[in-house]
Amino acid sequence: MNRWLLPENIADILPSEARKIEDLRRILLDRFQAYGYELVMPPMLEYLDSLLTGSGQDLNLKTFKLVDQISGRTLGLRADMTPQVARIDAHLLNRQGVTRLCYAGSILHTRAAAGSSSREQLQLGAEIYGHAGWEADLEIQALLNDVLNLSQVGEITLDMSHAGILTAILGDFQPKSESLEELYSALQTKDVAGLNLVLQDWPSEVKSAVLALANLCGSPKQVLDQARQNLPKTAAVKAALDELERLCAAVADLPNSPELSLDLSDLKGYQYHSGVMFAAYVEGLPVAIARGGRYDMVGKAFGRSRPATGFSLDIMTLARISKKDSRKTAILAPWSNDQTLSQEIAQLRSQGQVVIQLLPGHEQDGDEFHCDRELVNQKGAWVVKTRA
Amino acid sequence: MNRWLLPENIADILPSEARKIEDLRRILLDRFQAYGYELVMPPMLEYLDSLLTGSGQDLNLKTFKLVDQISGRTLGLRADMTPQVARIDAHLLNRQGVTRLCYAGSILHTRAAAGSSSREQLQLGAEIYGHAGWEADLEIQALLNDVLNLSQVGEITLDMSHAGILTAILGDFQPKSESLEELYSALQTKDVAGLNLVLQDWPSEVKSAVLALANLCGSPKQVLDQARQNLPKTAAVKAALDELERLCAAVADLPNSPELSLDLSDLKGYQYHSGVMFAAYVEGLPVAIARGGRYDMVGKAFGRSRPATGFSLDIMTLARISKKDSRKTAILAPWSNDQTLSQEIAQLRSQGQVVIQLLPGHEQDGDEFHCDRELVNQKGAWVVKTRA
Repeated sequence: MNRWLLPENIADILPSEARKIEDLRRILLDRFQAYGYELVMPPMLEYLDSLLTGSGQDLNLKTFKLVDQISGRTLGLRADMTPQVARIDAHLLNRQGVTRLCYAGSILHTRAAAGSSSREQLQLGAEIYGHAGWEADLEIQALLNDVLNLSQVGEITLDMSHAGILTAILGDFQPKSESLEELYSALQTKDVAGLNLVLQDWPSEVKSAVLALANLCGSPKQVLDQARQNLPKTAAVKAALDELERLCAAVADLPNSPELSLDLSDLKGYQYHSGVMFAAYVEGLPVAIARGGRYDMVGKAFGRSRPATGFSLDIMTLARISKKDSRKTAILAPWSNDQTLSQEIAQLRSQGQVVIQLLPGHEQDGDEFHCDRELVNQKGAWVVKTRA
Repeated sequence: MNRWLLPENIADILPSEARKIEDLRRILLDRFQAYGYELVMPPMLEYLDSLLTGSGQDLNLKTFKLVDQISGRTLGLRADMTPQVARIDAHLLNRQGVTRLCYAGSILHTRAAAGSSSREQLQLGAEIYGHAGWEADLEIQALLNDVLNLSQVGEITLDMSHAGILTAILGDFQPKSESLEELYSALQTKDVAGLNLVLQDWPSEVKSAVLALANLCGSPKQVLDQARQNLPKTAAVKAALDELERLCAAVADLPNSPELSLDLSDLKGYQYHSGVMFAAYVEGLPVAIARGGRYDMVGKAFGRSRPATGFSLDIMTLARISKKDSRKTAILAPWSNDQTLSQEIAQLRSQGQVVIQLLPGHEQDGDEFHCDRELVNQKGAWVVKTRA
């Protein structure tokens, strides 16, 4: 076995890609801050119980487990930072008002997710706690649209859905959680046969409403019209559709607004969510670049349930599709113990210039940094000249 | 068991501290780049064999182990990024000339290190490969001094040592690796009784030279004079002392140069190192804030042994002692669907201002962001005013 071999779906990130990731990371975190989102840094490891609190079997299977030598208990390596940030809001900060938090860190999965070739992601996200109104959903979607535009990923499509519709359709009927999982997997892939199989023993009015849901996908106006005709006319369904309509109108008014569509059958992560859900797509990427939505109950397990909405994305994937150019040019400097040269180099570096000092005997080395200028001595003074 | 309880020596990092860590992280990485160090991002998980390659039992005990479901093999959660970066230089980049690399990422330890209250660190480091001369050591020490000054940690003391001296003293005599470990732990704590115990069966000339080493600690000039008198007068010892002398003179010439001292008995990590070693200390921190040195053999296990020197530090510890102020002020904006307000807010945010939009009904929320200004409507135009 070669010592330099890495596990499957685990990779090193080399300089050109790492620079791009770092640049995007800063652009996103700075924009999060400009909206008032405060950075928090939850730990890589937690007790497994805390990490999986309020989440489904899916996250459990994704989470690497290991043993804590100090407590003898099982620890989990985080596979998602969202529950950690909810824990911080609920327990640690415990503020009464609106709290805006953001985060950036590595997450690991036991197996690579569909559409991903990596078991390690650099997850960035933003969450707003404490406001139940649609204005918080709008702010989160505006922030996502803003950072995706800053990342130069081309045209953005925003798909919206609403977890409240299925909840309203189900009413008092409570299917097993496994058959719910099967349901939204069949809904998402528009698998009609699978859908009929899941629904066979369900009450007929629930069944017909769910089947109607499967076709509610397209432009906002058309989907809302159809939904108002074909879905049960309950207050909860009406409220959810009104909320989607209001949000679509406001998002369409954003600068560089995304193309909008509704897909009421996209309920990925439904058990987790409670209201508006959304996924952002960009050209050339078959899976969503970002996902988010409202999950008002997320803090409950930590002792304080309060409204929450947010989104997250993987910055490594973002960097792969971003058209931003992160190349930097540099200035080459000779090796010398001349103090005026050292001072000149220090000053250029303080101004943000990259100055590479050639170590003795390495004058013939390759130029990895694209040095387009060099420091040369002219009549006793060191000056920056364009390289031949 | 409360769901929000974290494992021992594992903690969340809350906004004010996280902001400071993020600021320092950027300052350091930017300065690394200004010196021509290229960022790489090795993975959090690797096969245990690769992670522990060329390292001692110490790193093995520190490393969390887990099982890879895909290969069935044991993975390690990285406890040190230095060997990973050496692997990247040796195998992945495989350049012929000088290569400068830097990195920043989480590392985890099964138990908190002495002097640390955390099992998770944010390790930042810089490494230069491919140059055996002292100029590379100088560049690394200059870079460390530069970033510590930028981090505003007060006065810096740089302690230097040299792994080549003990190697020269031992000559052909090869003690067991355990007794070597005991030796440098006794040397470091100046534990004379322990030292005599380790040395009892060693050849007498080695024993007396090692005992001389234990006292060689203090100002460079004095230590070098004593060392030249009391240590064996071999060519290898002379070369090591000359190298230290040359380096001390050059470091003393740096802008904002650190206070220098030599401690020839500080051989922490000796088995890893091959030449000049150093540790930086600052007031108020009982352990070194940064450690580094030359370890020319590090790439050997990955198929390419070449000169290497570098340093690393924990940015969480650095943030704790840094006197930099990372507070940001903000502008408060009302909620409104007025498009001119939205445009004004977008423009302020693009300029790097933090603008917090009050969500409806939250006018009485606490002010976590120190909003010193607000957007108010004056005769139809939105203007920024100082808050009362």
